[in-house]
Amino acid sequence: MTSPVIKIDPALDLVLEREIDVPVELVWKAWTTPEHLREWFAPKPWAITDCSVDLRPGGVMNFVMRSPDGQEFPNTSCYLEITPFERLVMTDTLQAGYRPSANPFFTAVVEMARHGSGARYRAIAIHGDAATRQKHEEMGFHDGWGTVLTQMVDYIKAGHMQR
Amino acid sequence: MTSPVIKIDPALDLVLEREIDVPVELVWKAWTTPEHLREWFAPKPWAITDCSVDLRPGGVMNFVMRSPDGQEFPNTSCYLEITPFERLVMTDTLQAGYRPSANPFFTAVVEMARHGSGARYRAIAIHGDAATRQKHEEMGFHDGWGTVLTQMVDYIKAGHMQR
Repeated sequence: MTSPVIKIDPALDLVLEREIDVPVELVWKAWTTPEHLREWFAPKPWAITDCSVDLRPGGVMNFVMRSPDGQEFPNTSCYLEITPFERLVMTDTLQAGYRPSANPFFTAVVEMARHGSGARYRAIAIHGDAATRQKHEEMGFHDGWGTVLTQMVDYIKAGHMQR
Repeated sequence: MTSPVIKIDPALDLVLEREIDVPVELVWKAWTTPEHLREWFAPKPWAITDCSVDLRPGGVMNFVMRSPDGQEFPNTSCYLEITPFERLVMTDTLQAGYRPSANPFFTAVVEMARHGSGARYRAIAIHGDAATRQKHEEMGFHDGWGTVLTQMVDYIKAGHMQR
């Protein structure tokens, strides 16, 4: 399921891989629909207070994460590649319309592939240098992305989504 | 010929527009073929000493510009959108495989459209803030991009390219 253009460098990148027992169609929908994203995309007790999706290359996902003590953190990520049920590539180095952003951090690749009745799932964080990778790891990449993936699977299994 | 996702902001962006009397097919080829790019893409007496093109989203154009006194300046720009004979979008905020770059500067949009026997041509430099736009303008955006466009048209008219 790897895109040939994306080369993972263990010294620079972070990877989360897991087999999950929900179908790729619902994983895709969970990732690309604002009303679903806000239910699982922040590790509880953090929350998503606002979310919008303009699902096309150069369009953006905007979302606001709220900490348990009420601080709000707005985020923007520009979509680069959109391959339904397979791969989503987005980056916070760009804003809407490919405008360079003030605080570039990483490119995210979310890959999924049918596997039995469920899916193989992989999230890759691509960084520009080893220091940024380390910072992201220390911020809790594996815990954070692992927790929200579990939340997504639970949310799908709870039957909140129609295919 | 404007992409609906790209919003030009006069306070942040720079635009060069010109009608040229060469066909879009050859403009496209001049922009996407290393052996042609090296002949026109640096304003003489600057030169391109090395150039490679991996023409796919996430692929890059690598090139080295050499100053008249022999200093070499390597550049990498990642392709984002490739619409033959219409639009090329690339950014130096990303390297190969969408990896964030160390020195993000701008996103370039090159647009062309058939116009009589020639073409309308537009180059847009999209910046993250007004200071970067100003820096790019002071570096000579209009002269530089205008000069190389003239060089490209002259190169095409000289018959160096086959359609």
